Amino acid sequence: MAQQHLEPTEPVTGHVGPATGDALAGYLRSQATEFLRALRQHRESGAQAPGPEEPVDAVRALRRSVRRISASLHTFRPLLDPDWSEHLRPELAWLSGTLGMEHAYESRLERLLLALHRLSGAVFPAQGAGAAAHSAAAPDRGNLTVGAAKAGALLDRQLTLARTRAHSTALQALGSSRFHAVADTIAVLASEVPLVKSATGTDLYPLAAAAQERLDDAAAALPLVTAGSPYNAEALIHGLSPDPSPHPQDAPWHQVRLLLRLHRYAREVLASSMDVRLMTAGQCLDRHRDASEAAAAAAAAARTPRIAPATAYALGVLHADQRHEVEAARFAFQQCWQKQAVST
Amino acid sequence: MAQQHLEPTEPVTGHVGPATGDALAGYLRSQATEFLRALRQHRESGAQAPGPEEPVDAVRALRRSVRRISASLHTFRPLLDPDWSEHLRPELAWLSGTLGMEHAYESRLERLLLALHRLSGAVFPAQGAGAAAHSAAAPDRGNLTVGAAKAGALLDRQLTLARTRAHSTALQALGSSRFHAVADTIAVLASEVPLVKSATGTDLYPLAAAAQERLDDAAAALPLVTAGSPYNAEALIHGLSPDPSPHPQDAPWHQVRLLLRLHRYAREVLASSMDVRLMTAGQCLDRHRDASEAAAAAAAAARTPRIAPATAYALGVLHADQRHEVEAARFAFQQCWQKQAVST
Repeated sequence: MAQQHLEPTEPVTGHVGPATGDALAGYLRSQATEFLRALRQHRESGAQAPGPEEPVDAVRALRRSVRRISASLHTFRPLLDPDWSEHLRPELAWLSGTLGMEHAYESRLERLLLALHRLSGAVFPAQGAGAAAHSAAAPDRGNLTVGAAKAGALLDRQLTLARTRAHSTALQALGSSRFHAVADTIAVLASEVPLVKSATGTDLYPLAAAAQERLDDAAAALPLVTAGSPYNAEALIHGLSPDPSPHPQDAPWHQVRLLLRLHRYAREVLASSMDVRLMTAGQCLDRHRDASEAAAAAAAAARTPRIAPATAYALGVLHADQRHEVEAARFAFQQCWQKQAVST
Repeated sequence: MAQQHLEPTEPVTGHVGPATGDALAGYLRSQATEFLRALRQHRESGAQAPGPEEPVDAVRALRRSVRRISASLHTFRPLLDPDWSEHLRPELAWLSGTLGMEHAYESRLERLLLALHRLSGAVFPAQGAGAAAHSAAAPDRGNLTVGAAKAGALLDRQLTLARTRAHSTALQALGSSRFHAVADTIAVLASEVPLVKSATGTDLYPLAAAAQERLDDAAAALPLVTAGSPYNAEALIHGLSPDPSPHPQDAPWHQVRLLLRLHRYAREVLASSMDVRLMTAGQCLDRHRDASEAAAAAAAAARTPRIAPATAYALGVLHADQRHEVEAARFAFQQCWQKQAVST
């Protein structure tokens, strides 16, 4: 059964004739062009008053191209000038990380508030009228709903502050000389890709297949039998242990998420057909990552000094709820991954 | 698909020739004899110093026969003298409820402490050495484990007190004139069952089939499609709402649990073959009930005034964990029930 997952989920094919260094150069040029387009958009929107969503879209487009360039440098490393590539890769990682934080905090807060809303019924966050009507007859029953509202306010405060800081950090980064150096390098890349001499005749397929093999191996090493058994209660194990968040058990799943992304971008370079199941598997692992980080944020908020017991209780329920989301995401990934393995 | 659940899961058959009032009388006599045997055992063990487990076993055997007599009075009501039966039934319900409380609190505490142990890793309840070793390097990380230990101590205090009270209440009940009247009635039942005149020739099957139909109807009305979809997150909905525990959404499942028991005992009267799947379904619903009540106990403990936030947080995690156990039990029941429906 574990063997099934070792088999390639779908051969990296679909392109006409073998893709070589030329295909890689074309892909990198187009991603570099995307990067420059997004950067121009960002600067134009930054010059005037903040327009509707433009800066957010521009930053997202910047990250999108940075991730793809970075992944190609990793997967197809032997075809690229090593000095150039080794210098650029950490810079792209820094940029991608820095630009992603604001959005991460924003969607984490949104996820947690939605969960609190679900857990509280219709009362929160429109708690004013509803909570009063409910708790008029039974004041002590209202406590937990007040707890949910307070937990929501606490998370809102903490994650909005973190988001604001991440926003400033991203703006500073985009104005820094370090960023300008990266942008200059990518501007050159848009016209001139530093391939090694042998690259033009080299088939990309073995390198892409190696990326896929790393993914398949890592996925096969996941505890998929457990994950495929619903309500295994694994994700909440050690939920009250003194180990720091995030949970160590999540790390291999996060790793597969990254390897899946590398595999997906390698397929883009080879112009392979789009695989819906790969997209679905990736979405499961995104959900896994988001729930894992949201659970950690709820646990961290519960360590805030001098909070009310009702607030702490609500954060405990919320933490466990998100850990079960983690478990649900693993189950969904297992279902999707097994389907891929069986269908080949 | 809903229709499948309406079909009888297994016909009430297996006995040789039609069972009539004589079979009912034989069953009631033997259950009454069991009751008297357990009562004698209880009194003997009560007279001397408390022996190893005997009183507990005796009370359990008492409840076991009371439940069966009570169920037979309900299912086969038309065959029994109405005055006698209508007088005895509430007395049996009182006795069964009173004798069951001590064990319920005991197993609820055990379930909650086991869950806390699972959620805390190896640290709780052997928290002394482990917790100190873990938290030496990171004092603030230790909070939640302290919280788990404190939550365990709080639940231990509250549920042990409730159990002790239930024990006294049960002892008082067993010494009351009300109980002696019930015991006298059952002593008579052991030799003389008050059947109506027509009972000897009456086939028990239609009454047993009606009990099964009530079960099948109630099970078909359960949200089994949702329950069969893993990680539907239904059980924790409104987990922070101001509605009082226990959750109203649990009631139909508790009702099916009772109807399943009535069905099972009716099969015993008819000497039908033992159905392992019915037992499994019943165990799922027992687990559902236990987790539901354990979750409510954790929520109730969180309303204790002046508890520490870390304690409240642990109780919140514990509540959510047990609500997910509720959801897991529904899933297990759905799997078991669907298998029954399909296999007929």
